[in-house]
Amino acid sequence: MNPASIIDDERLRSQIEFIVEIDKMKKILRRSLVTDGSKRENDAEHSWHLALMAILLKEYAEPGIDLLRVVGMVLVHDLVEIHAGDSFLYDPEAAKSKVERETKAAEKLFPILQADQCELIRGLWDEFEAASTSEAKYARALDRLQPILLNYTSGGQTWLENGVKLETAMEINLPIIARASARLADFTEDLLKNACKLGFLG
Amino acid sequence: MNPASIIDDERLRSQIEFIVEIDKMKKILRRSLVTDGSKRENDAEHSWHLALMAILLKEYAEPGIDLLRVVGMVLVHDLVEIHAGDSFLYDPEAAKSKVERETKAAEKLFPILQADQCELIRGLWDEFEAASTSEAKYARALDRLQPILLNYTSGGQTWLENGVKLETAMEINLPIIARASARLADFTEDLLKNACKLGFLG
Repeated sequence: MNPASIIDDERLRSQIEFIVEIDKMKKILRRSLVTDGSKRENDAEHSWHLALMAILLKEYAEPGIDLLRVVGMVLVHDLVEIHAGDSFLYDPEAAKSKVERETKAAEKLFPILQADQCELIRGLWDEFEAASTSEAKYARALDRLQPILLNYTSGGQTWLENGVKLETAMEINLPIIARASARLADFTEDLLKNACKLGFLG
Repeated sequence: MNPASIIDDERLRSQIEFIVEIDKMKKILRRSLVTDGSKRENDAEHSWHLALMAILLKEYAEPGIDLLRVVGMVLVHDLVEIHAGDSFLYDPEAAKSKVERETKAAEKLFPILQADQCELIRGLWDEFEAASTSEAKYARALDRLQPILLNYTSGGQTWLENGVKLETAMEINLPIIARASARLADFTEDLLKNACKLGFLG
């Protein structure tokens, strides 16, 4: 039963419809396990974790960034996966079709909202994808660091199952993290090297 | 394996330790089911949903509110449940011990962070609990509206299982929502009355 269906006012109806629709993020599973290894993480959980990381690690990003925009970006960056599904970072086949699948998904999902709010959410998603502002660079760095923290804590199961090598993990993640913060990139490099020593990465 | 353990620098270590610790929110189950009724929602998912609701429904809150503080509050408001557990809104026994349990939990959890960040997160949590600023009133209204949307969409199973009556649901939720927005309170009242007609509430 959709709560939006009882609303006469078009604006509130579009908002409630969107809020109910995005609940599906709680069922989109990622490859990462939560830190105790007991289950796969979903997109809603991941996005929440990134939002709090954005607040807590702000001092490593460029001074003067707009934190609200960073938080907005990480909250919405995976919404398109409601239609496009999760694309595993280390899967080259998924990467090929990712942009097309996600753009189609954005065109289906965001217009549930009225024009101004559709633009707001689409704008945050586009900014994250374009990766050119300081805010987007920081948001993308967090999106790379967070699964590394989870994989490390849960014993590298996702890396091992997918045959991820240290070199690949470094190549794919470190430049993205370094664009936002040398300190966080150094830490991530130490962590990946340590993961390799512990046998969590090939 | 804790990624914080490889960090020499105390500040980054405290931040990573906290970020890993709060991953436990993904295992704290609430009573609400996700909209398709297939599983119980957890605290991380709930907090993510509220943060996006805060952005999308801002026009119903008091003009000029600080949206970043609202988002910060909803992201952290349930962190104490890592130690204190979830307290069901309609359980008077849980309500009796809630303040004491959650205050102890806050004193255990937030000091993982260094003093300034401990104060920041504790401040957001205290502000939410005190419910006196416009930001906190809006955050609390969202925290009441969201489970009603989920319960309605998933057919009222949580209300029915716990024998929740229309009158109780109205008394417990509407005044809190009305403190932030008459429009959202009116909508919630319509929704609860409709839920009752549909047999979702006693």
